[in-house]
Amino acid sequence: MNSYGRQLILTTFGESHGKAIGCIVDGVPAGLKIDEKFIQDELNRRKPGKSPLETGRKEDDIVEILSGTFEGVSTGTPIMMVIFNTNQKSRDYDNIKELFRPGHADYTYYHKYGIRDYRGGGRSSARETAARVAGGAVAKLMLKEMGISIQSGICEVDGIAGDRVDFEYAQSSRMYALDPDKEALQERAILDAKAKHDSVGGVVLTTATGVPIGLGEPLYHKLDSTLAEAMMGINAVKAVEIGDGVIASHLKGSQNNDSIRADGFGSNHSGGILGGISNGDTIILKTHFKPTPSIFQPQDTVTTDNSEVTCELKGRHDPCVAIRGSVVCEAMMALVLADMALLNMGRKMEHLAKIYS
Amino acid sequence: MNSYGRQLILTTFGESHGKAIGCIVDGVPAGLKIDEKFIQDELNRRKPGKSPLETGRKEDDIVEILSGTFEGVSTGTPIMMVIFNTNQKSRDYDNIKELFRPGHADYTYYHKYGIRDYRGGGRSSARETAARVAGGAVAKLMLKEMGISIQSGICEVDGIAGDRVDFEYAQSSRMYALDPDKEALQERAILDAKAKHDSVGGVVLTTATGVPIGLGEPLYHKLDSTLAEAMMGINAVKAVEIGDGVIASHLKGSQNNDSIRADGFGSNHSGGILGGISNGDTIILKTHFKPTPSIFQPQDTVTTDNSEVTCELKGRHDPCVAIRGSVVCEAMMALVLADMALLNMGRKMEHLAKIYS
Amino acid sequence: MNSYGRQLILTTFGESHGKAIGCIVDGVPAGLKIDEKFIQDELNRRKPGKSPLETGRKEDDIVEILSGTFEGVSTGTPIMMVIFNTNQKSRDYDNIKELFRPGHADYTYYHKYGIRDYRGGGRSSARETAARVAGGAVAKLMLKEMGISIQSGICEVDGIAGDRVDFEYAQSSRMYALDPDKEALQERAILDAKAKHDSVGGVVLTTATGVPIGLGEPLYHKLDSTLAEAMMGINAVKAVEIGDGVIASHLKGSQNNDSIRADGFGSNHSGGILGGISNGDTIILKTHFKPTPSIFQPQDTVTTDNSEVTCELKGRHDPCVAIRGSVVCEAMMALVLADMALLNMGRKMEHLAKIYS
Amino acid sequence: MNSYGRQLILTTFGESHGKAIGCIVDGVPAGLKIDEKFIQDELNRRKPGKSPLETGRKEDDIVEILSGTFEGVSTGTPIMMVIFNTNQKSRDYDNIKELFRPGHADYTYYHKYGIRDYRGGGRSSARETAARVAGGAVAKLMLKEMGISIQSGICEVDGIAGDRVDFEYAQSSRMYALDPDKEALQERAILDAKAKHDSVGGVVLTTATGVPIGLGEPLYHKLDSTLAEAMMGINAVKAVEIGDGVIASHLKGSQNNDSIRADGFGSNHSGGILGGISNGDTIILKTHFKPTPSIFQPQDTVTTDNSEVTCELKGRHDPCVAIRGSVVCEAMMALVLADMALLNMGRKMEHLAKIYS
Repeated sequence: MNSYGRQLILTTFGESHGKAIGCIVDGVPAGLKIDEKFIQDELNRRKPGKSPLETGRKEDDIVEILSGTFEGVSTGTPIMMVIFNTNQKSRDYDNIKELFRPGHADYTYYHKYGIRDYRGGGRSSARETAARVAGGAVAKLMLKEMGISIQSGICEVDGIAGDRVDFEYAQSSRMYALDPDKEALQERAILDAKAKHDSVGGVVLTTATGVPIGLGEPLYHKLDSTLAEAMMGINAVKAVEIGDGVIASHLKGSQNNDSIRADGFGSNHSGGILGGISNGDTIILKTHFKPTPSIFQPQDTVTTDNSEVTCELKGRHDPCVAIRGSVVCEAMMALVLADMALLNMGRKMEHLAKIYS
Repeated sequence: MNSYGRQLILTTFGESHGKAIGCIVDGVPAGLKIDEKFIQDELNRRKPGKSPLETGRKEDDIVEILSGTFEGVSTGTPIMMVIFNTNQKSRDYDNIKELFRPGHADYTYYHKYGIRDYRGGGRSSARETAARVAGGAVAKLMLKEMGISIQSGICEVDGIAGDRVDFEYAQSSRMYALDPDKEALQERAILDAKAKHDSVGGVVLTTATGVPIGLGEPLYHKLDSTLAEAMMGINAVKAVEIGDGVIASHLKGSQNNDSIRADGFGSNHSGGILGGISNGDTIILKTHFKPTPSIFQPQDTVTTDNSEVTCELKGRHDPCVAIRGSVVCEAMMALVLADMALLNMGRKMEHLAKIYS
Repeated sequence: MNSYGRQLILTTFGESHGKAIGCIVDGVPAGLKIDEKFIQDELNRRKPGKSPLETGRKEDDIVEILSGTFEGVSTGTPIMMVIFNTNQKSRDYDNIKELFRPGHADYTYYHKYGIRDYRGGGRSSARETAARVAGGAVAKLMLKEMGISIQSGICEVDGIAGDRVDFEYAQSSRMYALDPDKEALQERAILDAKAKHDSVGGVVLTTATGVPIGLGEPLYHKLDSTLAEAMMGINAVKAVEIGDGVIASHLKGSQNNDSIRADGFGSNHSGGILGGISNGDTIILKTHFKPTPSIFQPQDTVTTDNSEVTCELKGRHDPCVAIRGSVVCEAMMALVLADMALLNMGRKMEHLAKIYS
Repeated sequence: MNSYGRQLILTTFGESHGKAIGCIVDGVPAGLKIDEKFIQDELNRRKPGKSPLETGRKEDDIVEILSGTFEGVSTGTPIMMVIFNTNQKSRDYDNIKELFRPGHADYTYYHKYGIRDYRGGGRSSARETAARVAGGAVAKLMLKEMGISIQSGICEVDGIAGDRVDFEYAQSSRMYALDPDKEALQERAILDAKAKHDSVGGVVLTTATGVPIGLGEPLYHKLDSTLAEAMMGINAVKAVEIGDGVIASHLKGSQNNDSIRADGFGSNHSGGILGGISNGDTIILKTHFKPTPSIFQPQDTVTTDNSEVTCELKGRHDPCVAIRGSVVCEAMMALVLADMALLNMGRKMEHLAKIYS
């Protein structure tokens, strides 16, 4: 249940305040150059503490590869990557040991398992997503070889939507903003909320270009359904849209259908997916993050013995999880696309002939 | 790839204009009374041709159980259900044999597989969802024994949103409308579009009550991510929201967090799921359907040899697929919840003690 | 749990005395010519009642394909095949309704599920293997395209081992005997046992030639371990050997190691598998079947309420299940090899380049 | 493909001469006391270099748990265990860098993946089984709570079969001999072979007592087929027998059937499994290991560019891998049984009622 994928399989482990977090990536084809610097760079994009827009917890998130490569190249065996936790302040959590933080998984973990590691949310902490980013980086290395490229950025914060989509700009923005004109407003919303010990939600746009036609396995492992699962499984995500998404339900068929021409599609309302299969156009996906549940205002909650109390959180938290979440969205999309590329290989007899002749 | 679920596994087969469609439901616990009338009734709710709001294709959708029950009770072996196709008009599709209908899976199936059954969309037809409804009906029988109940209805059509949510009313509405006050407007939008040889989108609200705390398997088989996958995999779905969904990204943490009291949650912004695990509150989910791609206006497209042509569709189609889609949403939610209930059984050592002592 | 395989997935359904048995084969690459006559011929090789060496139950085992092909070619969608049961004599089983036949699954099914379809063993009947043979026939069609060929035959009956291995002869032998010189003795052993209302065991040799190097997924989906699972899962099988098998444990390393030369291996003690991966040599496998548990002598057993009784079976049974079991061994080997061929496609980056360039 | 199990899932990583080996055990129910000393003790039973009967490579095999426990108890999250490699002598393998050792996986890994970590066999080394033993130890902790106990020992070496089965004695024997009377002979065979730079095969008997009726998932995840897979997947295994195994095929039905009495079975030819499901009797399994392929005599082989050469191995190797293999057999059986116990929980509606009422 802590594994993701069918042919390219990510298995993660670790708790926020345990000894380490990490992952095993299984199914990486042999012969892929494993660029460790690239993997570390991806982790650096996600790591906390880079600006006042993020949590103050500073983790270096240094990744070490323990298996699966030989002389810098994948061997086809499982690639194990570990990140040791270094900056735990578990004391911060002593006061929540006996109570459930509103909006968090404390309540459900406790009731499901009868036990919980309360330190920093334990396994349910977004810290686990570092392991996904490490795994996603390996997937990106595969995709690069296929000419597939993934981009992301923040298209909305606290209800303030951007109009432009500038992925290049987003790379240099400390909040990964896609619209340079709205960035200042969006930043202010975040910092205002932070000042009020509150938090805000946000929306991430993720796209993939260069995707070949044919990825996605109907009927129950479609590309869109699998991407929806991947994104909805990221901490704090509450909605996922493909292509025009919610807007599509307001359109007429005559508006929403993408015409087809000899040189490609006349529009891309579909977000690059038809019948659950990539159509060669850009994959477009929006992921909606709720506001960080960790806020520093008093909240009503109950203790593990169901007594009502007021919860006053300490600790260090992101005022807008969507920002660092965008790097995780990229990682999940990379894992899905790489997995789908492997799965698709066996779908035509002529593919078999190419490999086994 | 045509299977869904981990412990309760639905595998479907069949094409729109083939001999039959159907499914195998594997993993049904032994000792469940299999109410065949209930299964047929569920199929009747989905079957086409019940009103002018639906496609004119009339299929009786009579389901027959070929295995897995003995004297009306499940035996723990696979339950096979078949529905023979009776009302195919394959001739209607002769004119699309060589071209790709815009908004349909024709283009992607052809390129992925190098061959396609063009008759009625073949495997990609929404007709396949009858098999899901049959499987979902079995899941509902399981859930009933656990006190879990699933409801659905149409909360929006063509951008016309309802305000009220009356599941009881929806049962009697021919468009499964949740808001009786908006039904007339919504119906008119559908019939107007139909008159113009066009189609409209719509939104389905699906809920589940009586769900025990603890369903959902973090990290990569969470309840919300799995529901998102289940819904996004239904034909024509482009967006999925859990709880407040898109709106959650506009809220502050202090607004969005559900307070916890001794007798339960103070609100349900979360849609009954925290950290990917059910919290005992009502599961709330919105599914956005695009307008039916089959419209009867001229459209630009290409042939299988990439020549540009104008596509003029014949055939019989739903002007708003969300209506019958609501029954499919229920089925998918039932399958997910029943599967999660089985998976959760092994999560505590004290559960093992209850079974094996 | 009624599915087998990872990329090529067989799911079977049906009980011995239910309405039908059958299977869905999912993951068949598109573009494979589906030779229905070949599939039927394979079923005819397995079908009962062809000689006095087999059960008197006569089933025509006519297979019908309900989905997954179009104009005689696979489309990449699930291939559903059904065989309706025609010659049930369920009355024969009235007398075992309340008791457990020794050596059968009656006892364990009843205790596992709390209910059982006692008619002919229900799901546990070897009749289910007809569905495997149908699925295996499709796998064989795939393997033929790759130049892989599977052979089998009976190498031992009732402890009477053959010395020669003549697969061609076996095809014409009514007991699929591999050694023409021992066939008469072996037949006599079967008929003697039958005359005494008893049964005998036997051993099947199954081989595959033309297998490319590289099939098998270490570490937990090795070719040998998966073949062992496939064979041990056939009704009545109690031992599986790869290559020299049991004998290998009596040899010295210097005797057992196969030397390697420029033109191949100097011997084949390994049975064509090294480290769980095919080495290009012939795959060799022995499968040991216990004597049919259904015998017509009085036996001690208990009833469902645990009263001791004497069991006197009626019905029609094979005196040596290994004979028809050999066809099932071939089917299972075909399914494993075809699945492994699909899985192996994604193991090298250079394979991806061949498909996606 | 480096994962094993369905509900209790072992995923392993690591190469013989890489930085570390280890595993993730996913699906362990929450609330299990994780006895770290027991896990280490199990590893100590398998670790090399304890006697002249084993390889001279000395590894302390110190296991460290990095996640999944809190205050000594499982939390339901993945348990990650790592063993750092400390005693690699990779230089020993420089001379095999360009050639394929007979009887080893060198040849097949190289051809499958196009690259191999030649140092000590890389991933194909039996060193990986330490990770299985760590995972199996966790499974044993689960089984202990259920009253299930697993035993093993050597019943045959170099064709010298024991007559007695004394599991208690085996615990104290340095070769885990089951028959004290044959131990000296068996040891001598091993040491003689070693002196001649050769190796011998051996057979492990593994049993489980206290197994409840009902474990095993027909039809394609039967208890016997899954055990066969588990055992055949251990390095150097070439045959697996359940119960009477090979002998069963020499018996008549009247001899092989186990009669049933009010207080249990009258005999145990079946090895505790009927129809793929445990019958409550002792599970009995024999695993046949080939002689260690690493021998120190000249052997014919080829290089990676297919030139014929004579191979002269250096390094340190077990003269009889069955000895330490017995600990691995126990681990694999424990993993299978614990997984089956979890899977079986959902098989009856009355089980659901016990958990969800």
